[in-house]
Amino acid sequence: MAVIIDGKKISQEILKNLKETIKRKKLTLKLGVVLVGGDKSSKIFIREKEKASQKIGIGFELFKFKTKIKQNDLKKEIKKIVKRKEIKGIVIQLPLPKKFDEGEILDLIPSEKDIDVLSSESLGKFYNGKLRIYPPSISAVDEIFKRYKIDLKGKNVVVVGQGKLIGKPLSIYLVSKKATFSMVNEFTENISDLTKKAQILISGVGKPEMIKGNIIKKGVMAIDFGCSFKDGKLKGDFDFESVFKKAGFLTPVPGGMGPITVACLLKNLLKLNF
Amino acid sequence: MAVIIDGKKISQEILKNLKETIKRKKLTLKLGVVLVGGDKSSKIFIREKEKASQKIGIGFELFKFKTKIKQNDLKKEIKKIVKRKEIKGIVIQLPLPKKFDEGEILDLIPSEKDIDVLSSESLGKFYNGKLRIYPPSISAVDEIFKRYKIDLKGKNVVVVGQGKLIGKPLSIYLVSKKATFSMVNEFTENISDLTKKAQILISGVGKPEMIKGNIIKKGVMAIDFGCSFKDGKLKGDFDFESVFKKAGFLTPVPGGMGPITVACLLKNLLKLNF
Repeated sequence: MAVIIDGKKISQEILKNLKETIKRKKLTLKLGVVLVGGDKSSKIFIREKEKASQKIGIGFELFKFKTKIKQNDLKKEIKKIVKRKEIKGIVIQLPLPKKFDEGEILDLIPSEKDIDVLSSESLGKFYNGKLRIYPPSISAVDEIFKRYKIDLKGKNVVVVGQGKLIGKPLSIYLVSKKATFSMVNEFTENISDLTKKAQILISGVGKPEMIKGNIIKKGVMAIDFGCSFKDGKLKGDFDFESVFKKAGFLTPVPGGMGPITVACLLKNLLKLNF
Repeated sequence: MAVIIDGKKISQEILKNLKETIKRKKLTLKLGVVLVGGDKSSKIFIREKEKASQKIGIGFELFKFKTKIKQNDLKKEIKKIVKRKEIKGIVIQLPLPKKFDEGEILDLIPSEKDIDVLSSESLGKFYNGKLRIYPPSISAVDEIFKRYKIDLKGKNVVVVGQGKLIGKPLSIYLVSKKATFSMVNEFTENISDLTKKAQILISGVGKPEMIKGNIIKKGVMAIDFGCSFKDGKLKGDFDFESVFKKAGFLTPVPGGMGPITVACLLKNLLKLNF
């Protein structure tokens, strides 16, 4: 049976540290979040960021725009927001409604406020190993490996999903850590050929309970970034019941990587501001 | 027995096209190459770039500096070079002698002249899929896949080596093409577990003849970026004799990816200038 990695607890510990630093250094920080449209999951995620900010003494301001706003008008508005001096970190809540050119919008965030690491400038520096922060999801994974003293050199890591927020930045991180790694996606014929050999299995797809216990290695460290709704309940990519029996470590959903990632987002805000 | 992919021939075809375009559009282009120190392989590679440039009517200027030049002085000199209007593309020949901060030097190249795609700005755009060119090595691989009409979706690709010029940018390219891929390095315990299953095997290590026929799949497409000297002869990462017997396709060394990569470098120069 797997050790459950308590993401809430880890998140609380990170936030506690941040709170102390903010107090000690008398920092005045404010997070600005841009929401376009009314996506339900986005609202939940924003609420988590707001709660975490409030808890540790970071200001929070939400900028809401309707889906019907034009790309150019949205750009104008965001340009105004990023210029505001008291806002030290900006999040454009993704996904934007499909009609927008997401890349163009994200590139409006100056690197020193880009706590999600999503502008071309930030990503170039991240790619090159020259950024002081990681994308929050990567920072969250790194946090786990540090806590469990895992050296990735020579470890066999398999990543399920190659998306912009998890899989793609993970490939850069894993190269930098000299891991042996494989990345599978929806076109992979037999993902079990690879997943069965993984010592560390990271998933970021968003298909509820798609990875069952029969395609994982006994004792695997299973890290679940999946986040989707099934029958009104939040589910991860791993099928909890069967994976729990076989894995060595497992991050649950909810209460796993989600809270840690939010805490790491705020850690980025601090790191970029002192 | 493998089909030998004739890199010289492909290179000639690319260069012929470029020459025609330069003539038709009456383009005046000049390539500037910076060499620091006297590395023997670097000199050979530069000579290849010079020959290819001359062949198609691109001007060429070599800027040589001694290893003893200071980082700041080198930066000053490069800043002057990149400003020169007639120089439309810049190559900093790598590796720089160890005492230099390579990243800092590469970041001096403005993206519109960065035909090697090595500055943070260019790499950020490449990562984000917003650059009009690929790094030359990636462009060379892409050229092969196009010629052999290979759709990478769902293909099992294995990359040996995770370096800056081949492995790392390949990970971004392979994500963008939705391939299933694995990346191994010097810390991987049994590379044959992965290499034996690869439909496409790409190596960019620089250890002569390290990959033998017994660790590859019959019919594999073997792409060799390796380039090292053994007994005074240029060798690839694949052991030609044993791999030739088993592979479906094989790029030889010399005369494989090297010439194609040089042609793709000059293709980048054109692409960025009209």
